[in-house]
Amino acid sequence: MEDINLHFTGDFNAVQLANNLLAAMLDNHIHQGNELNIDVRRVTWRRVIDVNDRALRSLVISLGGPGNGFPREDGFDIVVASEVMAILCLAESLTDLKQRLGKIVVAYSRDKRAIHAAELKAHGAMAVLLKDAIKPNLVQTLENNPAIVHGGPFANIAHGCNSVIATRSALKLAEYVVTEAGFGADLGAEKFIDIKCRKSGLRPDACVVVATIRALKFHGGAERTKLNEENLGALDKGFANLERHVRNVRDVYGLPCVVSINHFTHDTEAELELLQQKCAALAVPVVVARHWAKGGHGAEALARKVVELADSGTANMQFVYEDELPLVMKIEAVAKRVYSAVGIKIDSKARLRLDELEREGYGHFPVCIAKTQYSFSSDAALRGAPDGHTLVVREIRLSAGAEFVVAICGEIMTMPGLPRVPAAERIDVDSGGRVNGLF
Amino acid sequence: MEDINLHFTGDFNAVQLANNLLAAMLDNHIHQGNELNIDVRRVTWRRVIDVNDRALRSLVISLGGPGNGFPREDGFDIVVASEVMAILCLAESLTDLKQRLGKIVVAYSRDKRAIHAAELKAHGAMAVLLKDAIKPNLVQTLENNPAIVHGGPFANIAHGCNSVIATRSALKLAEYVVTEAGFGADLGAEKFIDIKCRKSGLRPDACVVVATIRALKFHGGAERTKLNEENLGALDKGFANLERHVRNVRDVYGLPCVVSINHFTHDTEAELELLQQKCAALAVPVVVARHWAKGGHGAEALARKVVELADSGTANMQFVYEDELPLVMKIEAVAKRVYSAVGIKIDSKARLRLDELEREGYGHFPVCIAKTQYSFSSDAALRGAPDGHTLVVREIRLSAGAEFVVAICGEIMTMPGLPRVPAAERIDVDSGGRVNGLF
Amino acid sequence: MEDINLHFTGDFNAVQLANNLLAAMLDNHIHQGNELNIDVRRVTWRRVIDVNDRALRSLVISLGGPGNGFPREDGFDIVVASEVMAILCLAESLTDLKQRLGKIVVAYSRDKRAIHAAELKAHGAMAVLLKDAIKPNLVQTLENNPAIVHGGPFANIAHGCNSVIATRSALKLAEYVVTEAGFGADLGAEKFIDIKCRKSGLRPDACVVVATIRALKFHGGAERTKLNEENLGALDKGFANLERHVRNVRDVYGLPCVVSINHFTHDTEAELELLQQKCAALAVPVVVARHWAKGGHGAEALARKVVELADSGTANMQFVYEDELPLVMKIEAVAKRVYSAVGIKIDSKARLRLDELEREGYGHFPVCIAKTQYSFSSDAALRGAPDGHTLVVREIRLSAGAEFVVAICGEIMTMPGLPRVPAAERIDVDSGGRVNGLF
Amino acid sequence: MEDINLHFTGDFNAVQLANNLLAAMLDNHIHQGNELNIDVRRVTWRRVIDVNDRALRSLVISLGGPGNGFPREDGFDIVVASEVMAILCLAESLTDLKQRLGKIVVAYSRDKRAIHAAELKAHGAMAVLLKDAIKPNLVQTLENNPAIVHGGPFANIAHGCNSVIATRSALKLAEYVVTEAGFGADLGAEKFIDIKCRKSGLRPDACVVVATIRALKFHGGAERTKLNEENLGALDKGFANLERHVRNVRDVYGLPCVVSINHFTHDTEAELELLQQKCAALAVPVVVARHWAKGGHGAEALARKVVELADSGTANMQFVYEDELPLVMKIEAVAKRVYSAVGIKIDSKARLRLDELEREGYGHFPVCIAKTQYSFSSDAALRGAPDGHTLVVREIRLSAGAEFVVAICGEIMTMPGLPRVPAAERIDVDSGGRVNGLF
Repeated sequence: MEDINLHFTGDFNAVQLANNLLAAMLDNHIHQGNELNIDVRRVTWRRVIDVNDRALRSLVISLGGPGNGFPREDGFDIVVASEVMAILCLAESLTDLKQRLGKIVVAYSRDKRAIHAAELKAHGAMAVLLKDAIKPNLVQTLENNPAIVHGGPFANIAHGCNSVIATRSALKLAEYVVTEAGFGADLGAEKFIDIKCRKSGLRPDACVVVATIRALKFHGGAERTKLNEENLGALDKGFANLERHVRNVRDVYGLPCVVSINHFTHDTEAELELLQQKCAALAVPVVVARHWAKGGHGAEALARKVVELADSGTANMQFVYEDELPLVMKIEAVAKRVYSAVGIKIDSKARLRLDELEREGYGHFPVCIAKTQYSFSSDAALRGAPDGHTLVVREIRLSAGAEFVVAICGEIMTMPGLPRVPAAERIDVDSGGRVNGLF
Repeated sequence: MEDINLHFTGDFNAVQLANNLLAAMLDNHIHQGNELNIDVRRVTWRRVIDVNDRALRSLVISLGGPGNGFPREDGFDIVVASEVMAILCLAESLTDLKQRLGKIVVAYSRDKRAIHAAELKAHGAMAVLLKDAIKPNLVQTLENNPAIVHGGPFANIAHGCNSVIATRSALKLAEYVVTEAGFGADLGAEKFIDIKCRKSGLRPDACVVVATIRALKFHGGAERTKLNEENLGALDKGFANLERHVRNVRDVYGLPCVVSINHFTHDTEAELELLQQKCAALAVPVVVARHWAKGGHGAEALARKVVELADSGTANMQFVYEDELPLVMKIEAVAKRVYSAVGIKIDSKARLRLDELEREGYGHFPVCIAKTQYSFSSDAALRGAPDGHTLVVREIRLSAGAEFVVAICGEIMTMPGLPRVPAAERIDVDSGGRVNGLF
Repeated sequence: MEDINLHFTGDFNAVQLANNLLAAMLDNHIHQGNELNIDVRRVTWRRVIDVNDRALRSLVISLGGPGNGFPREDGFDIVVASEVMAILCLAESLTDLKQRLGKIVVAYSRDKRAIHAAELKAHGAMAVLLKDAIKPNLVQTLENNPAIVHGGPFANIAHGCNSVIATRSALKLAEYVVTEAGFGADLGAEKFIDIKCRKSGLRPDACVVVATIRALKFHGGAERTKLNEENLGALDKGFANLERHVRNVRDVYGLPCVVSINHFTHDTEAELELLQQKCAALAVPVVVARHWAKGGHGAEALARKVVELADSGTANMQFVYEDELPLVMKIEAVAKRVYSAVGIKIDSKARLRLDELEREGYGHFPVCIAKTQYSFSSDAALRGAPDGHTLVVREIRLSAGAEFVVAICGEIMTMPGLPRVPAAERIDVDSGGRVNGLF
Repeated sequence: MEDINLHFTGDFNAVQLANNLLAAMLDNHIHQGNELNIDVRRVTWRRVIDVNDRALRSLVISLGGPGNGFPREDGFDIVVASEVMAILCLAESLTDLKQRLGKIVVAYSRDKRAIHAAELKAHGAMAVLLKDAIKPNLVQTLENNPAIVHGGPFANIAHGCNSVIATRSALKLAEYVVTEAGFGADLGAEKFIDIKCRKSGLRPDACVVVATIRALKFHGGAERTKLNEENLGALDKGFANLERHVRNVRDVYGLPCVVSINHFTHDTEAELELLQQKCAALAVPVVVARHWAKGGHGAEALARKVVELADSGTANMQFVYEDELPLVMKIEAVAKRVYSAVGIKIDSKARLRLDELEREGYGHFPVCIAKTQYSFSSDAALRGAPDGHTLVVREIRLSAGAEFVVAICGEIMTMPGLPRVPAAERIDVDSGGRVNGLF
């Protein structure tokens, strides 16, 4: 666990180097004569670093005179926010990886033409830096079961799933493969299906919707500080949130599903019973999973249920929208069908950008919606299963190599800052190399 | 070779992360209330990155409003220029490493007090990030001989030797250990002895002075484009350069030495003969080494000579100066005894800084002179064995964790830029993962 | 005319110097120890310059090391956008001017306390710089009539009227005084009444609403390129715009008014007749003014009408809102009563700022709404007399010395840029000092 | 006096506006397509402002996105440091002024071609802004004598004399005209002769060397805090400084001169006598001037002596060097002949710049040396009449419109900062408009 949290196999570093090599080649191109006529004010490619460092969010680079290039505004994101990470996780092969890297749009020229990484001849060297990182990493659980840990695109501005190559490798090695799709089923599952499955051809046989009684009580109005107390009323009310996720999975995505209750010490029998009743009314199987306390054994019932569902042949996976739908209507489709919004509202600049992207030939891309994971709406305070809300789209970004269009709905942070007392202050190592404070 | 040139074992990345974590904690401390009263204009700690990127040499960070910290001027160096790299290579153990990291001076307060990494509570976490990087890396040569590749402090502003731990490990594993001290014997050997040996207690038994006939002809006045032509006159004249290195090694450092002529295809018999005659006159053994063409066999004679010297018991290693000498006189000692300068001249700001360092208790540190490797003087154009020159010291920097004081003599580049046609443009990988263009 | 457009009496320069002296004293205070604990990221006072210079809109200052102060983000506005200009135009005397200058809020401290110019001891010297500028400037028209030209607060972010002292001086010198209130009657007249009259106690006896047939046709839907063509339909429809202004003046502000049609060469008889009929139906007197073509004589009828109205004793000036109304409701009152909006919508940060200002004791200030002059709404494209729109408030700024709160609705430019071909390129002077190209 | 120190006739403001209009047109040109291919890193034209404001010395402008131009490093100087001020003071007429403005070099292109103000079509409008400022300002002394106050080029980086037009006007109005040449006779008189007289053809008939007993004692080694005490030894020794100035004026510049002792209250009779003896030995007339205490009457003896000298016909003004001498040798001529240096030393970049300027056709320009006024050498600490020193030239700047080449020797500040307690804090105005604290 410690190694995974420290440098692991160096994949993140490789992504960082590939990302930053591209940035250096871009600024070098401008410095050496700027044959491509890049507009320094319209560079969209940012540098990345694997440290939470707010000081690097917004800066001015290339100061200090002619030897240091042309001054311009720039910023750093964290490594997982790099489009290179998204590309690594969607690439089918090293060749595909290289081609996608070449298609990254890094800037616009003075006459507003998109400039690609391939025009800077950077994609070959970037692929070399990533040639080992593209290989999935096999680790083992505490019970010595194999697990593949590979890639980590930022679920906010990217699709949040591990790599296609890892999933495919696992499918060749095992009879059943379980993979995670980050954040709530409105975000994670939707992107898993509309981006990862669409691109790769992968098709899941069943879906596990993970829930906790605590979270459902919170969605039912319970206070954050009282989630350890039994509260059947709040659970009853908050079930609407789970119900909508289940309906999305079954009716919108077309997948059979099981609800897995991640068991907590303070969950009461009455609460578990109520939840089971409500799931029964919804005709969805539900299993209480106790792997946190009991290890693999605690999830055995869940596993058997998943096998049963997967073998049932009832899966009929559906995208939320088709490729040919215009980008605006794709966003609207997700908003209405998955979030139960009444519609979308797009800021004027974002609307113009979508039109531009259609004209530039990116209209067939899927959309990757960046939204709070705390609500079906874009307002984190709206709990439960809100209706009647409008999705507000503030900004549009293109990930031309990852092949999706990001629609940002709300404040999205691509470079966190350290807190008042950074965790690092408590981390230490003794003379024997034993680490303290990491967890 | 390819792996070593790509990510290798991730040591550089670990150094980068440790360096940049410290920077982030520093800016975070200022942002969160600045209890230590750090002066943002007097921050000396810079960030590092492992890409040649002139755009990052000089920048303004923390722009964009109160959430992003306090604006200040900053810059990036390459990873090898980080003091963390120098510390890694001088540390005796993980505990020593951590203590040295804590002693790094990162900034000065509004009332000009030095601020240390330990005051930011960063050194523990930094040591954790370096806990694997501190272990030497064992590789093998093409002929399957073991070699240890570990660390790489920038020979310009640091001491340029691999790690103490690597040298010690090798000494436990083998009967004879050969280690490199980067750049000419005026720089590399001097720092090896006055910094690495002084600190660690390591003592060499013999020294190999590597030379080429091409370089000696260049020092004798031959044009750079005509070094492949026989030129006995230039060789005869340029021998003064080699002679001075040999005399420094024997008389100043107190070590028996052998001259190893790194043989090139165009070296003529007459040239080799002249060189051997001149070495004989100097009473120094000389061997022609042909390992580039013939592998280990080509260096066998050299190896036997080294063994003979090492076993001779004639080594009596001497420092160029003693610890208690004031910093100014240490610089002068190196300038006069090793560079044959008539004296030193120190810019007024540098002189004030030296006085400050004496007062702050760093007077017993060795000095690490940053100077061109192309001349015994600080003027790269002065070839051969110049006399009568004056060493001009322009700037003083403190490496409080590495425990030396850097004296910068001339323009020192701590962040290179990419050339007009970056090598990366020619680097590529095919679908089978074979890399082209890396060498 | 030329002199007025060049340096005139130096008033603008005096305002610039007073504004920039305050900025220099602010940064100097921070540099010299920052006793007031000013947060460099929360400085609200900007520098000004009397050149249209987009390069100065957004910059980073105090770079280059400890001697040059603490780096921070800053920007320049044009001189007329300085709060000093607004203060100069609202001050009753030199003493009042100095007190208002002292109340300017220039920044916030680390603990978010407002910092005033008086705390920097800058207001005395600022008043000295303005001691001549505060005196009204008497000029004459081409027909040798006296006119006072004094002050010019930017109608976008300030109240847009000339100085109180100038108006008062004129009232002592003449029997009837005409003064201008910049931009449409929804902006100019509202600010004249709610800010200038409220503060000074001045009360107008009558109001002239200036209109052109061209503008009314435009408001009725005519294309900008066809305004010289007769278009009775568009005039008929666009009259709704004039009607609303007249109703605002009569019913909201409580002032008798006359419509003055600024006659253009291409206005047709049929258009003038239609306009007169529609004004008659509205029971508002209307006069065609031809002073552009005929000088004072051309406005004689208008003048006689104004005298008649002024002498009628029918004026009963009313504010749009009272002092004690909360700031939010003041904005709402203007939006509903003057702009015919259905309501207002305030961005969350602006809402928080209004709450802060109420708490800090600025709740009794009048509001100064910065809005497009092209529409009654905040959408410049909505011509005529739109209903049902919502006023969107994006940003709140405090002018504590001028004693009003600015509510910014839409993009407000406080520093224009030069066009592709600057007018300056065509301006020249011959050897005799005759200027060409200025008009 | 107060009015002169405040806005006076607005000349400084006009210079500021002309300077800054040129800057805005330059950045606008780059923004609008940059037809001249200006390199943003090689812009030499700086903005100016009439406030001591260290925060503006070094900044980054044009931040905030494509609408605000191209980011670049910039800085502000004070108004008197503007080349426009130097041009105003050297111009013979409005036409000459405009032509000189057009010749200003504002930047270099990507291919290192000089870009002139005329290429930006800015000089016409600049001349319009200056059309009144070019006219000399007539004021009167407390005794109602006429005086012309006009222009003020910064004596550090410009020639430090008032305008040619003012001098010529005075010569037409009076029988004898006295004009000042700022700072010591090594700087002020040299530039007056080699720049102002050379360009204009003006020829002085006599020279007044102003000295104080205090200053001479300081040059003789007395401490700054003890200058009010009689110290004949120091005066005797310090006389060497005055002697060298007198010799320069007589022997190098070829002008008859009188020494005027600016009398101070603490000067003793013995000191005055010693000074007179030493002057007698040097055969130079000396007069004690008491105008500070006694008004015009106190300088009557001096005036009579000046008239006598001026009428003597002994003046034979000589330049220190001829036009055709290369720039390097012109600097050397001043250094040796006026400063008594043994030679000059030029930093390598400055040397290259001089070579460039010769190639670009500026070799015939006079040189304007920027040096401390506290010593004949470039080291402010070297008092008296030092010999054997070397003049170190650090930087070269071109004033193509003013038609001289500036050689900077030492730290030159073109933008002062405010002190810990700015004088402005004590300046105030009462309700009657009376100013306190200005003097």
